[in-house]
Amino acid sequence: MQTTALEKQLHFLREIDRLKTVVRQSPLLDKSRKENSAEHSWHLAMYALLLNQYASGTVDTNRVIQMLLLHDIVEIDVGDFPIHGGLSSELQAEQEWKAADRLFGLLPSPQGKELLALWQEFERAETEDAKFAKALDRFQPLLINVFTGGGTWTENGVSLEQVFSRYGPVIKRGAPLLWSVCERWVVQHFARQASEKSPGTS
Amino acid sequence: MQTTALEKQLHFLREIDRLKTVVRQSPLLDKSRKENSAEHSWHLAMYALLLNQYASGTVDTNRVIQMLLLHDIVEIDVGDFPIHGGLSSELQAEQEWKAADRLFGLLPSPQGKELLALWQEFERAETEDAKFAKALDRFQPLLINVFTGGGTWTENGVSLEQVFSRYGPVIKRGAPLLWSVCERWVVQHFARQASEKSPGTS
Ligand SMILES: [Ca+2]
Repeated sequence: MQTTALEKQLHFLREIDRLKTVVRQSPLLDKSRKENSAEHSWHLAMYALLLNQYASGTVDTNRVIQMLLLHDIVEIDVGDFPIHGGLSSELQAEQEWKAADRLFGLLPSPQGKELLALWQEFERAETEDAKFAKALDRFQPLLINVFTGGGTWTENGVSLEQVFSRYGPVIKRGAPLLWSVCERWVVQHFARQASEKSPGTS
Repeated sequence: MQTTALEKQLHFLREIDRLKTVVRQSPLLDKSRKENSAEHSWHLAMYALLLNQYASGTVDTNRVIQMLLLHDIVEIDVGDFPIHGGLSSELQAEQEWKAADRLFGLLPSPQGKELLALWQEFERAETEDAKFAKALDRFQPLLINVFTGGGTWTENGVSLEQVFSRYGPVIKRGAPLLWSVCERWVVQHFARQASEKSPGTS
C-alpha cells in the first residue's frame, strides 16, 4: 500500500511534537521552569519577525522565520547541546546532520529535500539569512540571562570573557547593532555581580 | 528620555515570553502534560509550512505563518478560551481585541499597526490566508484528540455531532481535503469508543 503525501506530512507533524519535551538550559523569564525547544523556536521566529531591521545584510525575513522554526528539530533525536557544555562540536554536528536526514526524510519529495536544504543552510551559516538566524539564536538566550540576573552563566560559572567569546562573534556577524546593546548589558551584569560579591570594597 | 524602537521591540519580546505559561486544554501527544500556547503556535506555523497545498484558495504561506505565530498572544492578557467551554464568544472577542491593542501598542509604529492588522485579519477570517490559518488552528487540536484516543472530547463528554459542528465548518472552509480526512478519523474514533463501552453487544 502506498503512503500518500498527506500521510507522510502528518507523520512528520506528529513526530516533531516531541520537540515540546526537549528541555533547554535557559529558564523562562519568570524563572518558573526551563524553556523547551518548541517554544524557544516560536520565540525566535517572533524575534526574526520583529528585529529584521537589525540584520547586518539584506535578509528575507520569511526565510529566516522558516529556518528558525525548524532549526532545532534535530534535538528530537540528539537532545539540546548546551552552549556551555563540553561536548566536541564535531561529534555534535555529525549526530545532528544524521538526525536531519532521518526527520526530513519522513516528508514527501521535494518538500523534505527543500526543508533539509534550509536546515543545512542554517547550520553552514554562510548566507545572510542564516547568519542573521544564527545571531538571533545566540541573542535570545543572552537576553534571558541578562533579564533573569544571570541564568545559565551563574549556574555554570561563566565569566565575562567567556560570554564575549561564546556569544559575541555570532551575534556581531549577523546583527552588529544588537551586539552593541548586548555588550553594554553584559558589562553591567558582571559589574553588578562583582559589586554584590564584595559589598565592603565599594 | 525617549524610548528607542529597539527598546520597545525588546519590551514586547519580553512581554510575550508569558505565552509559554498559558496552558491549553489539549495534551501533548505523549500525554505527559498539557500543551502551552507558545509551543502550540510553533506547531501551527509548522503545519502551515508543510500543508499549504491543501488550502482551499490561493494563500501566501509566509503570511499564514506570521498570522499563526502571533494569533494567540492576546491570551497573555485574557487566557485561553477552550472550544468546549461555555463563555459567550462576544465577550471573549471584546476582551481579545482590547488585549491586541495593548500588546501591539507596545511596538514602534508602523510595525505595531501592521502586526495588529494581521492579527485582526486572522480574527475576521475573511481572506484566504486567514481562512486557511483558522482551519489549521482547528485541525491541530482535532488531530491531537484523535491521536491521544479522545483528549478534550472524552474529558468534556463531547459527541460526534458536536465535533462535526465545532470543527467541521472552519476546517472545511479553509482546507476541504483536510476535513475529509478528519471526518474519517472522527467517525472511526466514536465507533471505537462506542464498541468499547458495550463490549457484550457486538
Ligand atoms: Ca538553538
